This record gives sequence, structure tokens and C-alpha cells, in this order.
Amino acid sequence: MKKMVYQFHEGTKEMKAILGGKGAGLSEMARMGIPVPPGFTISAEVCEYYYQHEQQYPEELWDEIKSHLTQIEKDTGKAFGNPQNPLLVSVRSGAAISMPGMMDTILNLGLNDDIVLKWLSGTGNTRFVYDSYRRLLQMFGNVVYEIEHAQFEKVLHQVKAAKGYTLDNELQIEDLKQVIAGYEQLYITIKGKPFPQDPWEQLTDAIGAVIKSWNNNRAIVYRRLNKIDGLLGTAVNIQSMVFGNRNNQSGTGVCFTRNPSTGEKLLYGEFLINAQGEDVVAGIRTPQKISELKSVMPACYDQLLATCEKLENHYRDMQDIEFTIEDNRLFLLQTRSGKRTGAAAVKVAVDLFEEDRISKEEALIRVQPDQLNQLLHPRFDPVEKEKVVVLAKGLPASPGAAVGKVVFTAQRAEEEAANNVPVILVREETSPEDIRGMNVAKGILTARGGMTSHAAVVARGMGKCCVSGVDSIVVDEEKREFRTKSGTVVKEFDTISLDGTSGEVFAQAIPTITPHMGEDMTKLLDWADSYRKLKIRTNADTPKDAEQARKFGAEGIGLCRTEHMFFEGDRIQAVREMILSDTLAGREKALAKILPMQREDFIGIFKAMKGFPVTIRLLDPPLHEFLPTDEGDIQELATELHISVDKVKDKIQSLKEFNPMLGHRGCRLGITFPEITTMQTRAIMEAACLVSKQDNASIVPEIMVPLVGSEKELLSQKTVIDLTAAKVFIEQGLTLPYLVGTMIEVPRAALTAYEIADQAQFFSFGTNDLTQMTFGFSRDDANKFLPYYVEHKILPEDPFISIDTKGVGRLIKIAAEEGKQRRPDLKIGICGEHGGDPDSIEFCHQVGLSYVSCSPFRVPIARLAAARAAIQYP
Amino acid sequence: MKKMVYQFHEGTKEMKAILGGKGAGLSEMARMGIPVPPGFTISAEVCEYYYQHEQQYPEELWDEIKSHLTQIEKDTGKAFGNPQNPLLVSVRSGAAISMPGMMDTILNLGLNDDIVLKWLSGTGNTRFVYDSYRRLLQMFGNVVYEIEHAQFEKVLHQVKAAKGYTLDNELQIEDLKQVIAGYEQLYITIKGKPFPQDPWEQLTDAIGAVIKSWNNNRAIVYRRLNKIDGLLGTAVNIQSMVFGNRNNQSGTGVCFTRNPSTGEKLLYGEFLINAQGEDVVAGIRTPQKISELKSVMPACYDQLLATCEKLENHYRDMQDIEFTIEDNRLFLLQTRSGKRTGAAAVKVAVDLFEEDRISKEEALIRVQPDQLNQLLHPRFDPVEKEKVVVLAKGLPASPGAAVGKVVFTAQRAEEEAANNVPVILVREETSPEDIRGMNVAKGILTARGGMTSHAAVVARGMGKCCVSGVDSIVVDEEKREFRTKSGTVVKEFDTISLDGTSGEVFAQAIPTITPHMGEDMTKLLDWADSYRKLKIRTNADTPKDAEQARKFGAEGIGLCRTEHMFFEGDRIQAVREMILSDTLAGREKALAKILPMQREDFIGIFKAMKGFPVTIRLLDPPLHEFLPTDEGDIQELATELHISVDKVKDKIQSLKEFNPMLGHRGCRLGITFPEITTMQTRAIMEAACLVSKQDNASIVPEIMVPLVGSEKELLSQKTVIDLTAAKVFIEQGLTLPYLVGTMIEVPRAALTAYEIADQAQFFSFGTNDLTQMTFGFSRDDANKFLPYYVEHKILPEDPFISIDTKGVGRLIKIAAEEGKQRRPDLKIGICGEHGGDPDSIEFCHQVGLSYVSCSPFRVPIARLAAARAAIQYP
Repeated sequence: MKKMVYQFHEGTKEMKAILGGKGAGLSEMARMGIPVPPGFTISAEVCEYYYQHEQQYPEELWDEIKSHLTQIEKDTGKAFGNPQNPLLVSVRSGAAISMPGMMDTILNLGLNDDIVLKWLSGTGNTRFVYDSYRRLLQMFGNVVYEIEHAQFEKVLHQVKAAKGYTLDNELQIEDLKQVIAGYEQLYITIKGKPFPQDPWEQLTDAIGAVIKSWNNNRAIVYRRLNKIDGLLGTAVNIQSMVFGNRNNQSGTGVCFTRNPSTGEKLLYGEFLINAQGEDVVAGIRTPQKISELKSVMPACYDQLLATCEKLENHYRDMQDIEFTIEDNRLFLLQTRSGKRTGAAAVKVAVDLFEEDRISKEEALIRVQPDQLNQLLHPRFDPVEKEKVVVLAKGLPASPGAAVGKVVFTAQRAEEEAANNVPVILVREETSPEDIRGMNVAKGILTARGGMTSHAAVVARGMGKCCVSGVDSIVVDEEKREFRTKSGTVVKEFDTISLDGTSGEVFAQAIPTITPHMGEDMTKLLDWADSYRKLKIRTNADTPKDAEQARKFGAEGIGLCRTEHMFFEGDRIQAVREMILSDTLAGREKALAKILPMQREDFIGIFKAMKGFPVTIRLLDPPLHEFLPTDEGDIQELATELHISVDKVKDKIQSLKEFNPMLGHRGCRLGITFPEITTMQTRAIMEAACLVSKQDNASIVPEIMVPLVGSEKELLSQKTVIDLTAAKVFIEQGLTLPYLVGTMIEVPRAALTAYEIADQAQFFSFGTNDLTQMTFGFSRDDANKFLPYYVEHKILPEDPFISIDTKGVGRLIKIAAEEGKQRRPDLKIGICGEHGGDPDSIEFCHQVGLSYVSCSPFRVPIARLAAARAAIQYP
Repeated sequence: MKKMVYQFHEGTKEMKAILGGKGAGLSEMARMGIPVPPGFTISAEVCEYYYQHEQQYPEELWDEIKSHLTQIEKDTGKAFGNPQNPLLVSVRSGAAISMPGMMDTILNLGLNDDIVLKWLSGTGNTRFVYDSYRRLLQMFGNVVYEIEHAQFEKVLHQVKAAKGYTLDNELQIEDLKQVIAGYEQLYITIKGKPFPQDPWEQLTDAIGAVIKSWNNNRAIVYRRLNKIDGLLGTAVNIQSMVFGNRNNQSGTGVCFTRNPSTGEKLLYGEFLINAQGEDVVAGIRTPQKISELKSVMPACYDQLLATCEKLENHYRDMQDIEFTIEDNRLFLLQTRSGKRTGAAAVKVAVDLFEEDRISKEEALIRVQPDQLNQLLHPRFDPVEKEKVVVLAKGLPASPGAAVGKVVFTAQRAEEEAANNVPVILVREETSPEDIRGMNVAKGILTARGGMTSHAAVVARGMGKCCVSGVDSIVVDEEKREFRTKSGTVVKEFDTISLDGTSGEVFAQAIPTITPHMGEDMTKLLDWADSYRKLKIRTNADTPKDAEQARKFGAEGIGLCRTEHMFFEGDRIQAVREMILSDTLAGREKALAKILPMQREDFIGIFKAMKGFPVTIRLLDPPLHEFLPTDEGDIQELATELHISVDKVKDKIQSLKEFNPMLGHRGCRLGITFPEITTMQTRAIMEAACLVSKQDNASIVPEIMVPLVGSEKELLSQKTVIDLTAAKVFIEQGLTLPYLVGTMIEVPRAALTAYEIADQAQFFSFGTNDLTQMTFGFSRDDANKFLPYYVEHKILPEDPFISIDTKGVGRLIKIAAEEGKQRRPDLKIGICGEHGGDPDSIEFCHQVGLSYVSCSPFRVPIARLAAARAAIQYP
């Protein structure tokens, strides 16, 4: 095998794939002359080899590690396993993509009973030595021997409780000895074997544990949730220890070079005096703000500031760093691109461009489209919020507003969310086991942990509201409640509200309001518009939605569903009258009542979208959806229409369908009841003429026929539409241009698009239905197997979220190509929910569609996604 | 325009496309020297021109007709419109494909009041002249002026009734004058204008009426029912009249050169003395058997025999001819390939080959695959039939046995058939308006009309049981009943049985039995087997079906559905127990009860198909199909399983689906409940091992996974199957070869076949579901629009009957091609109901599939269809 182990200075930041993010960062810093404790990285290729060879390591691995260990000994002047001047090391995982909290770390490796005793005299800092050993025992036991964390905590707690301590650093030498004895006993009691005294055995075991952790459940779930695929495995970093817990001139911290919540250009982070790094990340002790370091250790603070600036200049991005101070000496232990909220992502990208560090293209690529979601999420109505008393306050760990029912376990969160119950997950502190529960919760509330705790980091990544470290509450998982210091009890399923931007918690629901786009986002999206090739339209059925979408930058309506209009107010009565008529005359009479109302709808929409195209889909759902199901409603309907209850029931019965999805709907309605198409066309055309006259605007209605599967179906409807339009134009003394096109949502439509294009001036892919029919999945019923499919990788992901390119995508390609061959000026768009999904938008760009249409709130996301696609696939 | 009119001797039998079948036949006969009255044919291109030019005729048409008319005048020595020696002509339609009763005929054209008077003295046969005029008035009025036939009948009836006549030829001169006066009055009363006295006006009107009749509803319906497409239009034949009604040495008849019911080589037909041709075809007078002509007019009979032999030799097929004898002179008026029953088609084809007139290939092409259907239809159990008293007896017009409820109108027949009620259509006599009702009826019974009446001819074409001319019954459409002479009354919806082979009618249901294949059919199918490339398998779920299919020549089972087995006997209880179990252990316990029974099924099937491949499909339907819906059954189930009724109801509720077609079924079941797949595989493999040991036979089970849409689904099921098979083989001490393959019935499976082929050893197209999903048509719900679609040509035909080649067929082509690219030895078949449809089989042959699988009774049809496809597309 080729080179397996790299001394830090042998690597570069480009070698992430084999050194992992952490290793590549350490290597790069070492080459930049930034103070990094000496160490080396075992390549991720070793991990890959291990899993490809029935969990065997390459033969020469251990020799290669030994020689690199010797190099560290030289660099540090210490010796591994030498009691006089022991080299201690940390062992850390580190894959090419960061997975916070997913992988395991061991510090102070190289100590044993004998070395501790001898080292004591060498350092003259007894407390520090015992504390280091205690930590090693705990981390090693937990990570390598899988002894539960709580077991160690129990020992520690017993000792502290006996003395009445609250903080770890109140422990005295004798207490620590007692803790160590207790820890060592745990090994015997639980595992039946002692802590390995041979430092080399410790090292090989630890390396093995890291490599094995690559395939533990938490890691697998994290990779799936975050769509991380194609990595070799994890690298392993072995690094000489520096000690933040050596004394009070020592400490450890983590910080971001800019504010990861807002993007503001200011050092942002936390540190702990006399502590090792895990204390900060684990959120067990509540740390101090990084700005306070200035007064505590001014020289170190200045050095930290300068180092951050240097790193940002070098990486051209906001960095997330870990540092340790040992006896007033600063060491960097990690640097990586910092995770950030959507708001921060936008601001940092825009700022970096304006600071001349990155190009516009880079700025656009830096922001994930879905991150904008956070900026578009509702926030609490300030007036309403003012009226509500704050229940508790914690850290504003991830911005946004969330309202939901309280649950105390991730499992319960999943159960409730499966029934569409909005939940807030409340935990003492979260752990990687909670990830799936966090994923489905509306918001997360923790009693402990800082801004960089597990809960906070993960929630920001998910763009989910989170309030952390609310230490005024006690979480009682057993009783399923939490209690505030003032005595309020909040039980499971009580509703609370979280403000992730202020850190406030409220014991009731608070109304939310629509956000508006900030200056930075507007700027970024303007840049996006200059790059993208796809037009962005919106799916809007009302003037209000249309206006909202216009504000977000929509360039027209791609899908205006007319059936929603059929339900409003007293229209439903006329619709039912139509359905219950046995004669054409009866149906026409009822439709005549709907006509003026439908015309009003279109007038509103045309006015809202003045100057932009509006695609209106003719009636789509099966007629039974409009009939009542409730006995009382049936009675009432019969009375109002002066017909018998039996007749209403007979009609309901006769319209019942086994598979309504594949039944009498879409153009099949318009073909068998052309009078419906006539009425709708008339409403559209009369509205268009009216608005055109009133506003002197150029209105080009686009009438879309749903569920077409063959050319003749479209031809049949087009004939009705053209005839009706011609009549209206004569009546109105005005001729408007208009288009007639079709949804492509039945597989056969895609397969015969070359014929359908003869009748269609535009195609719009209805990817919801197309996905249902191409897979044979009823979206309403698929919850019985689809989650299983995604979880077990039978499908790479839910095809209703992201377009299945192999199947559905192939049909789209066939239809787009062959449709254009037949009619080169064919407009082609997409109006399924995929129209707002970044991956699907990328696909639409690649296939050469003209536009995507999505819900108003996805419009900004679509604009950015379309630009990124255009940059990446020019 | 090019030549529009052809004198008979100018045409040949190859010119059917423009001269029509009748014209080409007359032309060919004229060239052969067979006595044909002189005449000419107006090309079908004129009809085409007419409909392409807004119903305008080509300018030069009338001049060209005039010059051809002059030619007839020369040939006959008569003159059109000349009262001294008038040329009378017939005007007949005739398209390239015969449409019995669809188009209209006018005889004796050229007469008027003046000519009649003058001609009287010329002929000296007053009765004949008046009778000819009467007929002209009636036919012209009916066809050109659309005066209802019944109106003329009424006049005739009044005159006959006044004199107490029963037969038309009892009418005396004065009676005929009265009838003529009555007919002429009808023109005035109903149409407000007299019968046109100008012969040329008569001729141009009649030609126009023929051309217009091409697009009347009856013609359109007939063409649709018979899938006749792509014709130019109808030709018009103008022919000098010869008179079968001139005297008692005259007559007219129709006959077949062989028996059109059985194929026996014997002249078969009927004639009427002193009558015109329409009297025979219309079934108004009951005619004499052709054999009786021998004694009546021996010379003419011999000449007829010789002519028939000459025509058969020339056309190399059984002929259907019309002849007229005028004053002992024989004239042929038509010859065409004779319509025949399935039995006759088979016998004639086999005989013609054995008479050395046609090749085997031609013999196979001569029999339409669907004609075999008649030979495979059930007939009455002779023992049961013996016990039943015959209600009435008529002519055995079309063989077969039919049982159904009596209806008296075509409309009622259609209504009842739509609800799957088997009906017998009972009519005084049928007319073209009845075609749709005949099409849906199980059988047809008429009180009047012979073996060549409308009812008989059409029923034979449809392969439908028909008894005609039952003159012992009176049909009272108004009272909705028919009465026999003996006084029995049969009312609407009473059940009767018809034996179309004996002509018997029974007033109750008689059990039917399965037919067996005759010697001729066996011979023909053996020939078919030597030509076809496709293997023919069968869809069979039971040993009985499997045996039946083997007898019909099936070469294996292409689809054995296992779910039917789940319903039998007490199995359903175990199945329900499985569904209601909440635990794997509970489900396994229930499945263990099903295992031995399912194993028995497979043992039976393997034994029946010994040596032939058996493809077994794993459980397909959604689980809710197995649960009870009836309150009592639910109660019972709860009691038997010792669980609460609520629990049963909860389960039923939780399994309910919006679109079961697209729900939790097929491999989605096997993936989420692998224990079902395990049990089924075990049953299959244990049965295979057992039969293999017992019978020392080589059994190669083919396990088919349903509803696969992606490679991983199949892989997941294949893993379970392979694992279970391996276990069984170890237990049984025997390893058998077996195949694992998949249905291709989800559009995505076809689109990703290139991947699925990696896991599949065979593909079987489930074209029922594939059609449902490709069109988005739920077969259970499509009756709301699909009939409309077919009727209005929005779809060329019902895609559930014949494969839609453009959409569904395209997917099949993609899957077959790309699947084979990936795995060249991939076996590919089809097991939807299309597997028994001749057009679909032709498509399967063209696409290069390995086999088709169809229901046992379709196997012979499939064998023939496959051979024909191989001959036509070598």
C-alpha cells in the first residue's frame, strides 16, 4: 500500500479527501507557521482498506505509525511511555466532511498508573496530573470499551456530592485519587478487564475505535440525513497533547472568526480557564465569552485575533477554530470552514465579495439555497409577543420562531411528527442519538449547553429554531415535564413557543408573521438573477399569493389551480348543483352561477401579475371531492336543491372511485363535460379582456389542460377553448393573444410528447403526479413503505422531495427533447413541488427547461438554486 | 382528376381499394367470362374526394358517368329513360371491405309513371312491371329520402290485409296499383315532394345517397367495431337490372361455395322464386334451400355449380355469391370471399391446403386467431340438455351455446351488459341499428330471417351464438315479452338458453361444458407451432387450469398468482391471523400454518406442468383485500383470534388506502414483511424438491417478484429468496436450478430496466398494471370515460384490450432492448391479459419477446397469432 501516515507538515488543505477536514486543517496551519502541537494523520484510505478487507488493517500500518510517533518525540523532546518525560497524545477522528459530535475523541493517551506516579514529581502539579489521568480513563472507557458516560458521571458525582462540590475544579487531590480508583474499578466491574497499562496498546485500541466509529449508527444516520455519500472513511489524527487544564494560566476555547448566527465580522466564541477542549464542546460547564479573554490573557487574545485574521485571509472564508492555551502559550488545534445560519451565510458571502476576497460566482456557491429558508421563515409578531410573559430565557442558539407541543424524547417527537403534530423537543442536553427527533421537531430547547453545544450546532445546520442552556428549568424526562425555578410546570403535549433569535421561551402559542428579505439577501438574489438561465415562476391560486410571490421575485405564475376557487364561499353550492344535474342544460345553469365569481378571481390574479405570464390550469380533481360526506350536509344539500336525499347519495355513490388518482379527473372531466371547460375559458378570457382594457396592459393568458395522455385529448379540449375564446373576443370587441398548453404528468404524455407538441404551445411537468404514476406510488399511501425505502437505501431519497432522475427524469428528458424537436419554440416548465427543490432545479437547468414554478416562499431559493446550477453547468 | 369510372371489364380483383369488393368481384367475373349484367363502378376515390372537398363532387364526374351509361345501353340494347325499351339499373355501394347490411341498394332505377305505362305494353307482364316500380319507390324513398321502411310496410300491409293475403306475390295488378299510389302519396305526405320522374335525377340522387351513407352512424359504428380503418370510401356500382321477379322462371338467391358454419364442401344457400335479391338478404320472406333449385331449375342449378367451382378455383377461397335467374338465364351479381364461422374458417383453410390450392402459410393467414374462440366456447352439456324441453326451434344461424336474460332492445342489452348481466337479444328481425346491442349480447334470437339474414351474418362474424327464423314465436317489443304458439310467455329478464348449433331455444339455463379441439384445429395449430417464434405459456393458478392449458398446447406457466391460494378454505383464517399480528413472531406463526397448504398447491402445479417452466409470482395484492368487511365476519374473526373487535377494525382502518392500485402491495409487501417472501419461497422450493425426487423430473422454478420499480427492490427480495432456497436445499439434500425475475409493470421498471436486469434472470411484462400506470387509468374506474374515448376516437381502441404501442409499447421496447443489452440471455415474456390478444401478440413478436402467457382458453388463439406474426414479420 502507498503512504498511509502523514506528518502534519507533509499535508495541505487540498488533501481533505485522505487527511480529513481536521487533518488537512492542522497540516495547512503547520505549513502556515501557526502554532500547532506536533502530530500526524492516518489517511482515510486506511479506513477504506479496513472495510474493504473484512476489517483487517494493512500490514505495514503499525510500523509506519511507530516511525511517525518517533518524529513527534523528536519534535517535542518527549517520549511515548517514558515516565520521566511522557509524550501524551490525543486521538481524534476527522472525515473529509465535518460531522459534529458524531465521532469520538480521546485525550491524554499515554498515561498509566506507573507514569502518573513518576510524572507527578516531574511536573510538580499533582492536581493536573490526576485530572488528566481521570479524563483519559473516562474517555478511553467510554469510546473504546463502550462503558456508558453516565457510569463515570455517577462516580464523579458521588465524590463531589460527598464533599458538597458543584464544580469539577473544586476536586482536591485526594478526591481525584478516589475518582481514579472508582473509574478503574468500573473497567473491572463492567468489562471484566483493567484499563490497559501499555501506552502502545492504548494507542492501537484508540485508533481502532475511531475507525470502527465510522460505521456506528449515529454516523450512518448523520450521513444519510445530510446526504453525505462517497467518502473513503475517516482519517485519524494523533497529536501531542497541550494542556488547557495544566493551571489557571491555561485554558481552552472554540471560536468563529465571524458571528455564525448573523455573519457579523466579530470574533465569536467561548473559552474555559483550566479546562480541556471537550469541556467546552460537550456543554458540561458553561463557558465565558471570547471577548472576556482579552482581560484575562491579553497577549493570548491578541495572538488569537491575529491568527484568525491570517486564517480567514488564507481560507477566504469564515473559520471555526479550536485553541488551547498552555501556560500562556496559544496553540491551534483545529480550523475549518464554520457552520453558519442562513442569515450568516448570506451576509458572510456578500461581505467577502465586498471585501474583495471572493468573486460573485463564489459568493453564490457559498450559500446553500435551502439556507435561505431560515431567512424566509416566519417570526413572532412583535405586538403579540409583547403581550406574552417570558417563561424562561436561554441562549439564542439558532434563529427563527417555533410553536409546538412539548415532547421529551426523540422517539416521541418522531411519533407525533408522523401525525403532523408540530413538536418542540425539550432535552436536558441533546446527543447524537437525538438527531432524528431534532430533524422532525419544529424547535429544540435544552436546559444545558452553550452556543456551540451539540444542540446549537446541529440545529443551526438544520436551519431550525433552537434555544439552549436555559438553566432556569429542570427537565424531568421520567415525569414528562419541565419545571421552572418559579414553579411553573410544563407537561408533555403542552404548547410552547421558542424564539431562537432572542433565546426566549413562552408557555403558549404566539402568532407568527411573514419575514421580509434583508438587504444582503436582496443583493445576493440580484446577483443570482444575472447568472441564472431558468425563469422562476410561482404556484399561486389567489391574488394575495401572487403578490407575495412577486415580492420574492417571481416572474409569472406557472400554476394557478382553479379548483381551490370552486370551494370558496357559496360557490361550492353551485358546483354541487352542477354535479347533481342530469342534463347539460342543468349543468350549464349551475356553471353560469360560477362564471362571474371565477372571472373575479382571474381579474385579481391578472392585476397582481400585470405584465407577467399567468398559467391557469383547468379543473383537475375528480368531482366527488366537491360533494359532502357528512350526513347533515347531504340533507342540507338535498333540501337546498329540492331533490331527494337518495338522489344525492346515489350520485355520491356513483362517483365513488377505487383509485381516484387514476380516475375521472383532469382533462377527462373537460372532455366528458365540455361545458366546464367552456365556462372556465370564458371566465379567463373575459377577465383578460377586462384587465387589458382597464389597465391597458398586455395580458397573455396561458390555459393549461391537466392530465393529458394523448394528443387527441388535448386537441379535443383545445377545440373547446379556441371556440370559446373566439366567441368572447367577438363579444368584447378585442382579440388577445393566448396560449394553450398541457401538463405532462402522465407517463404516456411524456412518451408521446412528440405528438402532443403538435397541439401544445407549452408543456408544464406536473412532477407530483408524474412521480406517483412512474413509480406506482400513491403519495397518500406511501407512508407505509416509503420511509422504510429511504431508510434502507432502497431508494436514494424520497422521490417526492427531489426528482428521481433515472425514472421520472428520463421521462422529462424524453418529453423535453422530443417536444422541442417537433416544435422548436415550445415553452417548457415544471410546476410540481420539485420546482422549489434545489437538486431538482439543477436537473431542470441541465435538461434545458424554460422555467420552474414553486410556492411563493420557495421563489428566492429557486432563484439562487437556478444561478448556482448555471454557474456549475454553464 | 384521373379516371373515376370503370366499366366492369376494365377492372380486376386486385383493384378492390378503388372499385370496392363488389365492383372488383363483378369486374373479375366479367373478365372470366362469367355471365354478369353489364355495368360500371364509380371509384372509391370519388367518395374520398367528396369528403375532402366539403362534399363537392369532381367536376367531370357526371360526364364520365354519362359516357359509361351509354356503353351499357350499347351492351344491353336498351336505353336509359326510354319508355319503349327502358334500361333499368341497380345502384349499390361497395367498399374494399364488405360491410353487410351497412350500405344501401336501390333496384329498378330508371322507371317512372310514364315509362311504367309504356313499358307495360312492351313486356306484356303487368304484374312484374308494377312490382318493379313498387320496389323502386320503396327503396328509393327509404334510401334517398329517408322515409322509414315501416311506412311503406304499413301501406303494403293495409292492402294485403284488406284482401287477406299473407305473401307479397299474392298481390294482384289492382292491388299493386293501389300500393304504388299509396307509396307515391307517402313522398308527398312525408317529404312534401313527389318521387322524381327524371331517371337521370334518380341516378344522381341515388349515387349521392350511397356516398353519403359511407358516413352514416351505422357505417361508422360497424367500422369501429370491426376495426376497419384507412379505406378511401365506398365505390358505387351501377349495373343493368336483371329480374328475378319477372316470372316464375325467374328467381334470386345467395349461396356459399362451402358451408359457412361447418366448412363442409357443399353448396350452401337459399333462393326465392319470382323475387328480387333484397328479399333474400333482408330475411322478409323465408326462402328455399339451394339444393331444391336442382329440381326446380336443373339447368340453372348445374350452371351455378360449375360457376361456383370456377370461382373457387380462381379465388382459391370459399366464395359468397349472389345470383339472379331471369327467364331461366343465370346471372352472377356478386362474388366475394365468404364470411364464415371459426369452425368453417379452420376446416376451409385446412381443406384448401389439402386440396393443394393454398400453402400452409396461406392457410394460417386465412384463419383469424379470434375465430378459434368459437371453437373453444362452451357448449351445452348434452346430458343436461336432454332433460330440458325445447321451447322453440329456428335456424342454426351461428354455432355456440348461450345462456342469458331476455331483452328486447339493443339499448336495454347495452345497459344490462354494462352491469355484467348476460343477456340474449330477442328481436323480430335485427337491423344495422342493433349492432351494438348484438355486440354485447351473449346470443341473438330472431323470429324471422334465414341463414343469410342480417342477424345470422353479423352473429357469425362476431362468433356469437344465433338462432334465427323461429317463426313459432311472436315478439312483442311493447309488452316486453315473446309468446310461443303453444302459449308460453317469456318476459323481459327471464332466463333462456340458445343452441346456435341446433337452432333450439330453451326456457331455462342449461349448464355448459368445455369444448375440445377438433382434428382440423389440431392440424392447423400444429402447423402454427412450426412457424411461430414466440413460446406460448399460460396464466394458471391451479393444477386444473394448468392441465387444461397443457391440453391446449401451453408450454409452461407464465403467471401463477399465489394470492388466489390465500383465499381458499381455512387458509384465509391463517392469512388474517398473520395480518393482525403485531409481531414478527406472531406473523411467522401464522405463516407456518399456510406453508404446508401452499406447498401442496405448488406440488400439484409442478406435477401438472412436469418438464415445463413454471413462473410463480409472489404475493401481490394489498393486505386489506384479505380482511373481512362485513360486520358479522369481523365479529367472528375477533372471536376466533381471541382479540377485540376494535382491534380488527383498527387494523382494517389502518390498512385502508386512497389508491390501493398504487399502495402497499407487490414487492413493497415482501420488502416490509420479508417473512411472507420467506414462507412463499420455502413452499415453492420444498414442493420443487419433492416433485423432483418423486417424479425424477427436472423442475426449474421461476420466482417472480411483482411491482418492482427499482433495482434495489428486486435485490432486496432476491436476497431473501436465495437465502431461503439455500436453506431448503440443505434440508432436502438436493440442489435445484431456479430463476429469480421480475414483473415489469411499473413505468419506472421499464425506464430503469438496464439496472434491474442486473438482478433479474427474466422479465415478464405485466401489461395490465403497466397500462394503468402509463395512462393513469384505473381500470376499475375508467368506465366513466374510456368508452367515450373509444367511441369518439380519442383513443384508437381500449388499451386494456390491445397494447397501446405508442405509450405502453414504447416502454416495453425500451425495457426489452436495454434489459437485453445488459444481460443478453434475459428471458422476456408478457403475462398481462394482452398475452392472448392477437394484435398484442404480433407486437410482442416484433419486439422480440421470448414468450407470451395468456389464459388457458386463449392458448390456441395465441399459438395461431404467433405463427401469423412470424409469417408476416419474418
